[in-house]
Amino acid sequence: MNDFQNWAGRIQQRTESALNHFLPPGDIAPEKLHAAMRYSVMGGGKRVRALLAHAAAELCDAEAEKTDAAACAVELIHAYSLVHDDMPCMDDDDLRRGKPSCHKQYDDATALLVGDALQSLAFQLLSQPGLHEDAASQLHMVHVLAVASGSRGMAGGQAIDLASVGQALNQSELEYMHIHKTGALIRAAALLGAHCADKVSTETLKAIDHYAQSMGLAFQVIDDILDTEADTATLGKTAGKDAESNKPTYVTILGLSRAKALAQELHEHAISQVSPYGEKAGRLIQLADFIMHRNH
Amino acid sequence: MNDFQNWAGRIQQRTESALNHFLPPGDIAPEKLHAAMRYSVMGGGKRVRALLAHAAAELCDAEAEKTDAAACAVELIHAYSLVHDDMPCMDDDDLRRGKPSCHKQYDDATALLVGDALQSLAFQLLSQPGLHEDAASQLHMVHVLAVASGSRGMAGGQAIDLASVGQALNQSELEYMHIHKTGALIRAAALLGAHCADKVSTETLKAIDHYAQSMGLAFQVIDDILDTEADTATLGKTAGKDAESNKPTYVTILGLSRAKALAQELHEHAISQVSPYGEKAGRLIQLADFIMHRNH
Repeated sequence: MNDFQNWAGRIQQRTESALNHFLPPGDIAPEKLHAAMRYSVMGGGKRVRALLAHAAAELCDAEAEKTDAAACAVELIHAYSLVHDDMPCMDDDDLRRGKPSCHKQYDDATALLVGDALQSLAFQLLSQPGLHEDAASQLHMVHVLAVASGSRGMAGGQAIDLASVGQALNQSELEYMHIHKTGALIRAAALLGAHCADKVSTETLKAIDHYAQSMGLAFQVIDDILDTEADTATLGKTAGKDAESNKPTYVTILGLSRAKALAQELHEHAISQVSPYGEKAGRLIQLADFIMHRNH
Repeated sequence: MNDFQNWAGRIQQRTESALNHFLPPGDIAPEKLHAAMRYSVMGGGKRVRALLAHAAAELCDAEAEKTDAAACAVELIHAYSLVHDDMPCMDDDDLRRGKPSCHKQYDDATALLVGDALQSLAFQLLSQPGLHEDAASQLHMVHVLAVASGSRGMAGGQAIDLASVGQALNQSELEYMHIHKTGALIRAAALLGAHCADKVSTETLKAIDHYAQSMGLAFQVIDDILDTEADTATLGKTAGKDAESNKPTYVTILGLSRAKALAQELHEHAISQVSPYGEKAGRLIQLADFIMHRNH
């Protein structure tokens, strides 16, 4: 196991442990809702957004202990979006991370409430007293997450995605959709991580933001490539679903080889943004490499 | 028109105007989502939560200008909960405030995203820089709203409500459900209004909180009475729906006359909490009277 895998494993572990701490126990009322929230959040995924928050925090000299809550808040928003996205009125997906999606394991009404309550929990977490020494900075973090989640961010991206089914989008329209649907929250993860430092300069925030914008898009391009190439077992969700439901993807628009070239280009641009920070940018650079070479 | 009606009309008007300002315009992308958000929020309802926030703010000497954003944030959370509550997988209600509910006017997926985005917008609004001179106080307000909205508040109450369909609840179980489902947000409205003041004592917060707890419950008891007595046209939503779907109500558990007595008792208790504040409590007392005597 290399140095990055070691680090990522430690961050994933501390994120699981922090989420476990922040989520209400499954045996306090309403039990079914709490159990379903835990089912939808715990033990799942690569925690890319938490890794990103911690990697950005490292560049800004923030301690991991001070980054956990922000990283978890972003993961909770992401988890809620997956629960709602899988529902029958949205993507109608039965599988998520290799297990039945929330509405299949429970029911539609519970899945709806799970998503709603996870969103509230994210803001509850991020507004906890004393998370940041400076309350105004912490308030700004809440604002960043709220904007990234809302109608001009992630939820808006979902709406654009819905409207695009069966449409012949061009590359810039597809990009516009992804910048909102997944990009906004990925940017928020990196920015929130940076804000966990006592102080961070506007210049550094800008570099991290540009890095995150490029990697957010690269992440999506790679997702489309994986969706074309991988099988359901490796992916942990139903493979080929987007193509099947006539959704435009980078692969359907650009073809496989140009999609791969685009991912490469975005990856290089991201790295160029943070490499001036030298060793401190190490985790962000390793993370970008990891995202480039993941296979699920 | 009496003095209270004048005041309430002014608050309702300024709340409509503030919501109109805070909601993204319907002609910026994603247009359909923004139009549906406006459809679900604007021109609707009595704005009881905004009235409550402003009435509590008056007791604490907060200016109305400084209370608008908090009042709107609570109204946005309330509006999102109605949109999700009306969906087919929840109450499956076609009518809301006399017009087609969001998922009937648009579609289920849009209604899901409208609710999600309205919740984000509430936290975006409440975390705007400079809403309160003291950032730590404002952060606390965010926290209060998040807790009230989440799994131990409103969303949790919805879950308990779902689980109670067809169950023979007793009065205390029914109360437990309502304390969460509607009570938590009504308490948050009053507390947020109070926190809009530069300073507010713990004692005053406690009095306002007790007032809001009692009136929150009274509001629900009266809702159940109205649901039994009123017709669909007056109510603006499908009347008798709770009884029909075999949901327990105060009327089915206590009978009509004991339900009315309970509402009266809660009303008196609420007033006793704030009447020591004399004239300053005037709007809270008038509002309690208004809630007692509303007919829709």
